[in-house]
Amino acid sequence: MRDEEEEYARRDNHARPSSLNFPRSEFDFINSIRQHAFTHRARKSFNSSLVTHHSSLIYGIGDDAAVIEQRSGFCSVVTSDLLVEDVDFRLTTTGPVALGHKALAVSLSDIAGMGARPRWALLSIGVPREIWRSSFLDSFYEGFFALADRYGVALVGGDVSRTPERITIDSIVIGDAAQGSAVFRSGARPGDHIFVTGDLGGSALGLRLLEHGMNRRARPRDHRIIERAIRRHRRPEPRVSWGVLLGEEGLATAMIDISDGLSSDLAHLCRESGVGARIDAKRIPIDPLLAHQGRLLDLDPLDMALNGGEDFELLFTVHPRDLPRLPKRASGVAATYIGDVTYERDGILLHEGGRFHRLKRGGFVHF
Amino acid sequence: MRDEEEEYARRDNHARPSSLNFPRSEFDFINSIRQHAFTHRARKSFNSSLVTHHSSLIYGIGDDAAVIEQRSGFCSVVTSDLLVEDVDFRLTTTGPVALGHKALAVSLSDIAGMGARPRWALLSIGVPREIWRSSFLDSFYEGFFALADRYGVALVGGDVSRTPERITIDSIVIGDAAQGSAVFRSGARPGDHIFVTGDLGGSALGLRLLEHGMNRRARPRDHRIIERAIRRHRRPEPRVSWGVLLGEEGLATAMIDISDGLSSDLAHLCRESGVGARIDAKRIPIDPLLAHQGRLLDLDPLDMALNGGEDFELLFTVHPRDLPRLPKRASGVAATYIGDVTYERDGILLHEGGRFHRLKRGGFVHF
Repeated sequence: MRDEEEEYARRDNHARPSSLNFPRSEFDFINSIRQHAFTHRARKSFNSSLVTHHSSLIYGIGDDAAVIEQRSGFCSVVTSDLLVEDVDFRLTTTGPVALGHKALAVSLSDIAGMGARPRWALLSIGVPREIWRSSFLDSFYEGFFALADRYGVALVGGDVSRTPERITIDSIVIGDAAQGSAVFRSGARPGDHIFVTGDLGGSALGLRLLEHGMNRRARPRDHRIIERAIRRHRRPEPRVSWGVLLGEEGLATAMIDISDGLSSDLAHLCRESGVGARIDAKRIPIDPLLAHQGRLLDLDPLDMALNGGEDFELLFTVHPRDLPRLPKRASGVAATYIGDVTYERDGILLHEGGRFHRLKRGGFVHF
Repeated sequence: MRDEEEEYARRDNHARPSSLNFPRSEFDFINSIRQHAFTHRARKSFNSSLVTHHSSLIYGIGDDAAVIEQRSGFCSVVTSDLLVEDVDFRLTTTGPVALGHKALAVSLSDIAGMGARPRWALLSIGVPREIWRSSFLDSFYEGFFALADRYGVALVGGDVSRTPERITIDSIVIGDAAQGSAVFRSGARPGDHIFVTGDLGGSALGLRLLEHGMNRRARPRDHRIIERAIRRHRRPEPRVSWGVLLGEEGLATAMIDISDGLSSDLAHLCRESGVGARIDAKRIPIDPLLAHQGRLLDLDPLDMALNGGEDFELLFTVHPRDLPRLPKRASGVAATYIGDVTYERDGILLHEGGRFHRLKRGGFVHF
């Protein structure tokens, strides 16, 4: 674990002096973010594809609200995700850079799950006084902007507040999609094929490794694998390219991002579509890190892949006639066929060991 | 104080049994909000002006994100406001219905401050387990929807999370404005006249009364006035009609909503516009409740009106040629001329007792 945020997380109570002058006022802080957002935008504008991308921002940070131009023939796709310290993340396992990344990643994943292209972000953040006085927020925004820049997303607004203790973040992303190209959870029909991007269960493995510490039996050559699992949890990669591709090409009949776990999110998609599903245990793309480390930790790799949560992969359905048009990969990430959509009365079944089992939902619940 | 939320706030730890079954799941809860939002929308659709108003919602609650149609010639105006328990509100002084109202009101006020029409809302809310199990959220949404319905605003999304303790709310509102009609903080020019809607200082008076309890010298006939001041604090009225009117008619050169206090928000507007200002103490519309109760509480009414905060009135500037077109009232609320925009080098001056004083900023700061 040589990540800079890990280094940082080890230091006591994030009290590292910042390069900025302290105490700073809210105004100074918002102004520095505004400068940052502007600098990023200005730098990006050398890239002509991103000029068009940002040309419809009329006004961002620094007024009562942000103003964005609308275009006929397009839809806005809007999501918000609340992250609460000690419920959705822990500072002992997630450093500020990773937290900035993750806050944006979860919302980008929702936009991808709609088949839309992310464009704008707003960030409401509440922090205790001692965090405000440290360099925590500088590192947080570093992680946030690194990911935002990668996908041409501009930070256009938000809010800053104090909390008595514990950090709270609400991440809002606005994307757009050509009219009729947004993909809902409700469009799956019997006979459609079910696909999932990437691998499943790696994020849950990373969380276990963080929470329970290193495996004492782990040999030095395992450390690289452990690091990768932890990174999978800390810095999830939203499947933006897959989302945009499936939306623009009209390839998916239904889609959802896997945040709670495959078993839960497949159940959501089926319920909204009024369908059932059959998936094949042997086809589920279990993260190879799990196959390697899972057994050492007495974890069931299939259970982790089905119920682990926070994978931020995309689960989508495709009509058989569109299968020839479906690419094998997008931005280097594969999509795997895992089963078929059936009639609602059939329920959601898992084929394993030659038999069909009813698939139980085992994902994360807040209450 | 016969408000139903006041009644409610008095009960211990909000543990009133709800009409809903407990324990409920997150899914059931989100579904009940979705039903609620839908019922409200369906009822509204009998009103033809509101059919158009909502016709561009393609999909709301229940998917990864909400989808809203864009229209050529329009801009989206987006704001988010974070409210943290024990920093931005206290449950001892704000009941759940009032909190639902206020969470939306603060964001509607930002949209009004841009000269835009509010259309859509998203609400991210984190609550501790005991609040989740009570009827708190039912009452909260009651207050939220009562205000949303009044202005034809549809709840289209959001997020629900648990917090270890204390409620956190992020209120997001998306409005729209015809292209070129949004009003920024930066458009004021020397010679423009400065106006403020409604009265100032009443909300700060209400907060004092709530925090320090009733004035012991208050006579029974004072109670109605005290109630009104408290209501002013608990249930601020965003100036939506004024905002839409000033935007659509192109009457304001610059605008800001008064959330921190007149002295602070005038300073923000002047800084963004690169101008100075002279305002006349005698013209400032001090809330008549302050004139009545302020002296009993040893408060300086002018100080409360300048620095009190949370009035959620609009401060705007008008070019002299447009003064004849400016109505005296909108939806029964007056706008008062309080002074003039000057050159930046003159600073921000208050004319009081025959002399000009430099106006100090005394509004609310979080850190």
